[in-house]
Amino acid sequence: MNILLVSAYPNAKSFDAAIVKDIADNVPVKNNLKILDLYADDFQPVLYFDNDHPRRELKNDPEMAKYRDLFTWAKQIIFVFPIWWGGMPAILKGFVDRLIVAGFAYRYVDGHPTGLLTGRNAWIVTTYDSDNYAAHGEIDYGYVLKNQVLLMSGIRTTASFQLGNMKHTEAGKRESFLEKIKNAAQTLG
Amino acid sequence: MNILLVSAYPNAKSFDAAIVKDIADNVPVKNNLKILDLYADDFQPVLYFDNDHPRRELKNDPEMAKYRDLFTWAKQIIFVFPIWWGGMPAILKGFVDRLIVAGFAYRYVDGHPTGLLTGRNAWIVTTYDSDNYAAHGEIDYGYVLKNQVLLMSGIRTTASFQLGNMKHTEAGKRESFLEKIKNAAQTLG
Repeated sequence: MNILLVSAYPNAKSFDAAIVKDIADNVPVKNNLKILDLYADDFQPVLYFDNDHPRRELKNDPEMAKYRDLFTWAKQIIFVFPIWWGGMPAILKGFVDRLIVAGFAYRYVDGHPTGLLTGRNAWIVTTYDSDNYAAHGEIDYGYVLKNQVLLMSGIRTTASFQLGNMKHTEAGKRESFLEKIKNAAQTLG
Repeated sequence: MNILLVSAYPNAKSFDAAIVKDIADNVPVKNNLKILDLYADDFQPVLYFDNDHPRRELKNDPEMAKYRDLFTWAKQIIFVFPIWWGGMPAILKGFVDRLIVAGFAYRYVDGHPTGLLTGRNAWIVTTYDSDNYAAHGEIDYGYVLKNQVLLMSGIRTTASFQLGNMKHTEAGKRESFLEKIKNAAQTLG
């Protein structure tokens, strides 16, 4: 199976980086694995369009061609990212803004959006710390990506892994979280 | 009153641009108005930190000094932006990621976050089209900015204006939406 791991964390010496490494190390070798580290790729997340560069042409944006190819290639996509301020880091939000466009990820049929990336499963792995966790009534934590982005593209999210309160999580809890993800990774393919 | 208008839309010939212009034209002249157009400012929304550049130092990031000054100066902040994929455009999400940092926008007191930008009100003006609107169970539409970002910083959101289904909104509805915002702008100060 073709597996794409998409990560969005600036610090290579972080827990998020450990998650990515543990998944990569535990995916069975019969699979094809590619890692897309948006920070390492220096991804530019700002979506541009105007009257001369209309939104309907975004599906042909040459800067996004390699990323469209990756999403076409993959049958399993694993997102690993921190929740900042109730949502994706800007670098990942902009990846969505620029990649999930009409004519590539979905199209309208009789006024209803129809996913064009069907036949693909996703996992969403999120971490968040008490900077966000402390506030009441919080929403998102992967919900928006799952239900408002991937679903419309035809991509089915089959597993979500969340580790919260990162700043005050003891090592044991982190280890058991990594164990759970490693075990899951070993089932792929 | 010092009023800061923050906008995040790439197309200067758009309805969002019309909203910004109508607010600017209708704020009473006794106020001081500044407009921060993140696209025109070519704002770079990617948040970087690592072990050598820790998060706790972000409050001193020299690239963000002018934006910190604007938020310190303003007593009324008006956000105008489109909802893309259930949330802020990446350029605005990254503005939040980089600006709303510990030591500037909030600090921890006895383990609880305390806003440092108190005494400021916000308005949130959002537009969204049927690309997003069509899906079921949608969340956000300004909620995250209001309740998960501004509230923690001590900024109170006193009004929200939302115009949805943009692609199929007749001119009359757009006009009445602009009228409502113009009337509100005239009460400022």
